[in-house]
Amino acid sequence: MKLTILFGGASFEHEISIVSAITLKEKLSSFDLSFIFCDGDHKFYLIEADKMKAVTFSRGEHKKMPQLSLTQGAFAQKKGVFGGAVEHKDVVLNMIHGADGEDGTIAALLDFYSIKYIGPRVDACTFSYDKRYTKYLCESIGVKSVRYEVAHKDELSNITISYPLIVKPSRLGSSIGVSIVKEESELDYALDVAFEFDSVVLVEPFLEGVKEYNLAGYFADGAIHYSIVEEPHKEEFLDFEKKYMDFSRSEQVLKADISPELETKLKANFDKVYRGMFEGALIRCDFFVYHDEVLLNEINPIPGSMANYLFEDFAHSIESLSLSLPHAKRPKISYEYIHSISKAKGK
Amino acid sequence: MKLTILFGGASFEHEISIVSAITLKEKLSSFDLSFIFCDGDHKFYLIEADKMKAVTFSRGEHKKMPQLSLTQGAFAQKKGVFGGAVEHKDVVLNMIHGADGEDGTIAALLDFYSIKYIGPRVDACTFSYDKRYTKYLCESIGVKSVRYEVAHKDELSNITISYPLIVKPSRLGSSIGVSIVKEESELDYALDVAFEFDSVVLVEPFLEGVKEYNLAGYFADGAIHYSIVEEPHKEEFLDFEKKYMDFSRSEQVLKADISPELETKLKANFDKVYRGMFEGALIRCDFFVYHDEVLLNEINPIPGSMANYLFEDFAHSIESLSLSLPHAKRPKISYEYIHSISKAKGK
Repeated sequence: MKLTILFGGASFEHEISIVSAITLKEKLSSFDLSFIFCDGDHKFYLIEADKMKAVTFSRGEHKKMPQLSLTQGAFAQKKGVFGGAVEHKDVVLNMIHGADGEDGTIAALLDFYSIKYIGPRVDACTFSYDKRYTKYLCESIGVKSVRYEVAHKDELSNITISYPLIVKPSRLGSSIGVSIVKEESELDYALDVAFEFDSVVLVEPFLEGVKEYNLAGYFADGAIHYSIVEEPHKEEFLDFEKKYMDFSRSEQVLKADISPELETKLKANFDKVYRGMFEGALIRCDFFVYHDEVLLNEINPIPGSMANYLFEDFAHSIESLSLSLPHAKRPKISYEYIHSISKAKGK
Repeated sequence: MKLTILFGGASFEHEISIVSAITLKEKLSSFDLSFIFCDGDHKFYLIEADKMKAVTFSRGEHKKMPQLSLTQGAFAQKKGVFGGAVEHKDVVLNMIHGADGEDGTIAALLDFYSIKYIGPRVDACTFSYDKRYTKYLCESIGVKSVRYEVAHKDELSNITISYPLIVKPSRLGSSIGVSIVKEESELDYALDVAFEFDSVVLVEPFLEGVKEYNLAGYFADGAIHYSIVEEPHKEEFLDFEKKYMDFSRSEQVLKADISPELETKLKANFDKVYRGMFEGALIRCDFFVYHDEVLLNEINPIPGSMANYLFEDFAHSIESLSLSLPHAKRPKISYEYIHSISKAKGK
């Protein structure tokens, strides 16, 4: 089947998205793939498959490739003054991590231009991109999460959580700007680092001895299909560089050694988060288990390299998801009120 | 000052948006205004000011006017094969009610193409367009609202709220699909009506003897500027046709006769809702007062004709708001990780 991988974006995770797209080229080699790159200036380029290497972008070679623009139903490629336009109408897989891809921008663009896509819709982005709104969601749908306090830039923060604690920008993924703070003397610096990336910062207790489990899934053919549960390699926490390397993962991992009861609990929590909000997307939920409680840590609505390593038949998963995409119903416009008013006025 | 009114949209409130835009033409006559119409097929047209009449659109005459497309920093007007493009770069006032305008789509488009605009940003749209998410917001920021239950299409609904109750589609404004249900025998029909418009429906108790107060405001020059508090004319509730006429209001209304304490309470609640989320927009919050409690009923992030009738100097309000718009910071793209990896690999 045909599929277009959309990657890049004006985001701190721009490079990670390139790595993810290159990984998918390999993992979805049975597909008829196209690649569209969104650069830091929000220009779209059609990238030849054999140019899908990191250096193509770091050297700026993409700028010599055909530029595309959005039009109803397609990315259109201009063919010079007299040549007409070539249209790229395949289903898009939104592989842009962070800003643009996960904040609702790309979702809204593709919806507006009626292009079908795999990826989170606008509301799903709002509730997953900003960790504070993930907390709001948890509180409202009855999913537990780690206790938190909010600090605002240029405002006195009154943190009551005891040490050690973790400080993170509300709206960035991939551990950018995140610090573990062991004592009060380190707090101001950690807040300053986080405020470099966002004006809103979350503070949470650092849970010693917490277990971490990742579970991915997607909705297709009337049901949620779950990946295996993974217990990620855990150092104190992954910094950006380590996570970056992690995004190119493509080897199937081992299933975590957990009880069937815990697996059921994790899936039930995933289900609560996913349904009615994440349809159309393959997401990964990262959970904590602490004192026998399952806590949602974060939602990755576009996980690194689509968490391919958690699925037994990843190509099949993407294919069945692409056949179960929600379609935005566009209301039919009528002018009945204007007609009736015009009529009443005798015009 | 220059300002472009963007209106229309593929929405059930398409006609209402046309009425709002025509009203603003009169209320902002001191501005140098342009008008861009988004039709039901998501095509943009530049409308001459003297064609800003409802019949222009109901008769399809806009199709003879110049078509525009989005490009970095502007709406661009094609001038034929050799003519180049004219760019429209003014600040946009997003006057599209309902879908497109209030669901985050237009916000994302204008952000992506770096066009400055008055109107709610993507997250603000998510939390105001879907009434269920407004409830989530209220629960998390400590603003009270009416108790609610959720019904899903094609699922058995178990409503425990006692009669009379009110049934409303989660995602539509202007009272479309809303019913008051006096007894159980009427419930199924009311749910069916609401499910015509949304797969998620909210059910709330109908509060007898509730007082209703509207308060609008916006953030500019470092502070929130509030409108007067209005006690809207109240019949049982306004149906679509009455609300439609209401959207062309332009006469200043009288301040509600309320105590200074209540006014302070309403403003404090407005403040909690607005700050950190609605900057860039002029919104109207509709409150209930019931048994001495202030409850948020709904947030209108693009109120009909911008609630001009609630402001003493509406033109001044719009001007100062347009000078205090948030600007989306776009991260600078670097390729340091790719460079360092390529270097390590000797490529």
